[in-house]
Amino acid sequence: MISRISALAAALMLSAAGTAFGQTIYPLDRAEILAGSQFDFKVEFPPVQDASAVSVTINGQDAKSVLTQPADFLPSEDGERSALWIRGATLAKPGKYVVEATVRGAEPVRVTWEVFATPARKAKNVILFIGDGMSVAHRTAARILSKGLKEGRYGGELAIDDMPYMALVSTSGTDSVVTDSANSMSAYTTGHKSCVNALGVYCAHNKNTLDHPKVETIAELVKRRSDMAVGVVTNTEIEDATPAGMVSHTRRRADYNDIVGMFYQVQPDVIMGGGSPNFLPKSTPGSKRTDDKDFLKQFQDAGYSFVTSNTELKAAVQPGHTAKKLLGLFNTGNMDGALDRRLLKKGSVDKFPDQPDLTDQVGAALDILSKRDKGFVLMVESGHIDKYSHVLDWERAIFDTIMLDNAVKLAKDFAAKKNDTLVIVVADHAHPVSIVGTYDDDRKGDTARDKLGVYDEAKFPNYPPADAEGYPTSVEVSRRLAFVFGAFPDHCDTIRPHTEGPNVPAVKGDDGKYIANEKNCSGPQAVRRTGNLPTNQPQDVHAADDVVLTAIGPGAEQFHGRIDNTRVFRYMANALGLAKP
Amino acid sequence: MISRISALAAALMLSAAGTAFGQTIYPLDRAEILAGSQFDFKVEFPPVQDASAVSVTINGQDAKSVLTQPADFLPSEDGERSALWIRGATLAKPGKYVVEATVRGAEPVRVTWEVFATPARKAKNVILFIGDGMSVAHRTAARILSKGLKEGRYGGELAIDDMPYMALVSTSGTDSVVTDSANSMSAYTTGHKSCVNALGVYCAHNKNTLDHPKVETIAELVKRRSDMAVGVVTNTEIEDATPAGMVSHTRRRADYNDIVGMFYQVQPDVIMGGGSPNFLPKSTPGSKRTDDKDFLKQFQDAGYSFVTSNTELKAAVQPGHTAKKLLGLFNTGNMDGALDRRLLKKGSVDKFPDQPDLTDQVGAALDILSKRDKGFVLMVESGHIDKYSHVLDWERAIFDTIMLDNAVKLAKDFAAKKNDTLVIVVADHAHPVSIVGTYDDDRKGDTARDKLGVYDEAKFPNYPPADAEGYPTSVEVSRRLAFVFGAFPDHCDTIRPHTEGPNVPAVKGDDGKYIANEKNCSGPQAVRRTGNLPTNQPQDVHAADDVVLTAIGPGAEQFHGRIDNTRVFRYMANALGLAKP
Repeated sequence: MISRISALAAALMLSAAGTAFGQTIYPLDRAEILAGSQFDFKVEFPPVQDASAVSVTINGQDAKSVLTQPADFLPSEDGERSALWIRGATLAKPGKYVVEATVRGAEPVRVTWEVFATPARKAKNVILFIGDGMSVAHRTAARILSKGLKEGRYGGELAIDDMPYMALVSTSGTDSVVTDSANSMSAYTTGHKSCVNALGVYCAHNKNTLDHPKVETIAELVKRRSDMAVGVVTNTEIEDATPAGMVSHTRRRADYNDIVGMFYQVQPDVIMGGGSPNFLPKSTPGSKRTDDKDFLKQFQDAGYSFVTSNTELKAAVQPGHTAKKLLGLFNTGNMDGALDRRLLKKGSVDKFPDQPDLTDQVGAALDILSKRDKGFVLMVESGHIDKYSHVLDWERAIFDTIMLDNAVKLAKDFAAKKNDTLVIVVADHAHPVSIVGTYDDDRKGDTARDKLGVYDEAKFPNYPPADAEGYPTSVEVSRRLAFVFGAFPDHCDTIRPHTEGPNVPAVKGDDGKYIANEKNCSGPQAVRRTGNLPTNQPQDVHAADDVVLTAIGPGAEQFHGRIDNTRVFRYMANALGLAKP
Repeated sequence: MISRISALAAALMLSAAGTAFGQTIYPLDRAEILAGSQFDFKVEFPPVQDASAVSVTINGQDAKSVLTQPADFLPSEDGERSALWIRGATLAKPGKYVVEATVRGAEPVRVTWEVFATPARKAKNVILFIGDGMSVAHRTAARILSKGLKEGRYGGELAIDDMPYMALVSTSGTDSVVTDSANSMSAYTTGHKSCVNALGVYCAHNKNTLDHPKVETIAELVKRRSDMAVGVVTNTEIEDATPAGMVSHTRRRADYNDIVGMFYQVQPDVIMGGGSPNFLPKSTPGSKRTDDKDFLKQFQDAGYSFVTSNTELKAAVQPGHTAKKLLGLFNTGNMDGALDRRLLKKGSVDKFPDQPDLTDQVGAALDILSKRDKGFVLMVESGHIDKYSHVLDWERAIFDTIMLDNAVKLAKDFAAKKNDTLVIVVADHAHPVSIVGTYDDDRKGDTARDKLGVYDEAKFPNYPPADAEGYPTSVEVSRRLAFVFGAFPDHCDTIRPHTEGPNVPAVKGDDGKYIANEKNCSGPQAVRRTGNLPTNQPQDVHAADDVVLTAIGPGAEQFHGRIDNTRVFRYMANALGLAKP
């Protein structure tokens, strides 16, 4: 029989992020730290050590004296380990920092950090567009549907492509080659890599999801250091990982109620998305809160105009308006995508018929934020490129890629007026997606496989020309793109658009494993496909492939080659000159 | 009963590249033509017209007077159509050209061309690297295996990534959204898009595969215009589409014997690859020729040093050598990839134990070509990234991506000495590939699906560190990348590297349809997967997703945003100042 302590130690060994059992220093090795930014310094000494047995130095000096904040030694954190904390630390001087943590009689554990300064500010504003999960195939498909492809030539350029600078971005986190939207967004907003499900923290071993070592987000930084304005715009729930990444510090992205509180704490000047139930006190019908806090009231008391529809949004930013802060919550869940809002009228469009388009949201955000003297940081997410890809519903994903493109065009037009705005467009991770030909109803044969034309037999798809806003007027055509997924659960593929509403590829079977949703298993060429994913996965999963970043404006020239996702933060910080001693 | 003519006309209608039945003008609409480059002008008038009934004008003038070459009117080409030919035409003056072809009494058919000039030459040399089929996932996987990935950070940069300029390249041809390596390479070497299987020609309706309207290749151009040297280096058969694209004009890439003749006609100064049988007269055992031509003798008579092994290659370029022309044929078929040559010793390594590495080939090519006063154009292909991806053998594909990277490093080092060489690295098309996690032998469960870790459960693969040349010393590890394919035939997936030799996923069944190769269907987690491709496809297919281009050196600054594949030719021509009035 093993002791409780040993069992815990063994559990810790298993969960330690890729390191042998031993003390862990946060920030991790090779961290890049913006000079003057705040971070929690933590060293874990498992299992439990005496305070006198441990020492922590930075460049050979006692850590406390270098980090100039009070240190806190917890002899037995969570009953599992000793821990040294220095919260809210900063390092003013750029350079290399070697951190050593030693338990008496053992070899020290060592990490190296780079603290970086920034050059003089060259951008007044930064607009960061996130195409959540946007892969190369999404761009290509969006270009085909939006611009047309004839004899191998397109009828025009996407705004997201037509930028002077491009880089490939690596998205892996500290724990795994494959990231999720939380830790990848954190890398963009804090410059620190983290682990799956974590926002604005390093993943230590704390049981409390809200007590992991924090790193400052760009929203917090620009508010604290420069009195710049901040906007957070999405078409997902505002508490979802990507928008939450602007303000949040939690090991668990599902901490929605806490995340609303963090939005309130940071007070971005513009907040727009879905997800209203977590703003409402539990007494209100539909609330998802577990307490009595009324964040709608609190935000309004703090000077926010509150809007719930596109009509109200337009009214709030009418010429001559005086709105300085705006909270827009347009859906109880995620907002509906462009294909449903424009053409198919499925999803929750019936229930929320007056949701704004992402372009409406960006237009309103720019209107409010651009009135601020000190400049602004605006994050805009087109979040359903990811969500629709997860459910193998590529037409919806592509419509929302086109919507992202329209929103980027708006931002580029805004930026073109004065050369003071850095515009960045990037995905947070990839999906395993590709275009391998066309599904052609007129091909000989009865099965989905027969209908798939590859190479020259693919010809070109026959979507109708796009309307004035760049969307094809129908997706129900006879020769459709064969947009395929490399990882999926058991499901049935109809090889047709899901006109009845967003796809649900798999459902939970009696044994708790995901099985094909039988709703998709009829239809002329519906084909049953056995998944390659573990049976606990109901959807396609993320891919570790690099993602494409494009940029324009002052500071955009920093982007080239292959960069870590942390560099997106760093280059934004450089453009805004955010480091201060 | 329909008449013979009507049936032919109907067939023509079906095969016409995306246009309604009617006359077709070659070059096609929106062609970009380098000022002074040679091209065949052709107008087809189906079914058959009287010469007096047709007229063809360019910018309102008679076509013959503008193109200043003899015109040839064929009243009944192939018994199917009338055709006007003006072969070897050139246009000296840059600008827009509107071409109209009219049959009396009908509406004219109209295309527009752009003839482009080039700025003053800024590069002495151009080196064009083709990673055949190289997709984003190949780059990412090569970086992981070659540089290591720890806590989400790489141990170094790939040479193919570490370049100042990047663009996305669209690869679709004139006939289909999905290209093959022939027409995509043609776009790079001629600046004209073409159709699947075609090299250096527009795809007209001629029965003779060698008589389609030709466009000049960069190899022909620089030989004809500048007396520059040319190198063609590959590890595939030298007659394969990508190397052939440097010199060939045929509607059918399988015309290997003719392609050898075209190599001889153009006489690139360095020619290296596999595929010797098509050089040998039919009387020689092993020959694949149907005639008595002895191209080994002809090349040697023309001054070429001929080598067949790495030892001979090294000897040919020893210090003080005087070789000015070199033909290296190192295998009867395709050369073996890096994984077989270095570690597994499978493929044809037994038979050809002394094949050079691509770096050996590039080193020798640079040695010879750099001695030429007028500069050079060198094309280097790592061709098995594609071929191994086709057979779902990703480890081999990644080893050959690393090999490409090593070859690019060599070229970059060469270029760094003087700032006179433009180095471009690009794929010709994509594959539907992605990294979705890891296959971990230590995960609970018995099936391939159980062994697949996704998101945080993927952790990091445990390949051993790379050797001095950037290759991991083994691929047989317990936690391997889950590198997946989005399109495949019926096959069995072993979720393990194919140590027994390059994979053969599917074989022909009794009914001629491809079925799983049973050799892969045993093994601890081998899983039977039903394909999504038509049953006449034995392999994974190409994807239409954009590909990544990186570039360094004079002229590299032209590459940004999204470009058509034709622009690769144009920007090389610009860098070399190839347009002449």
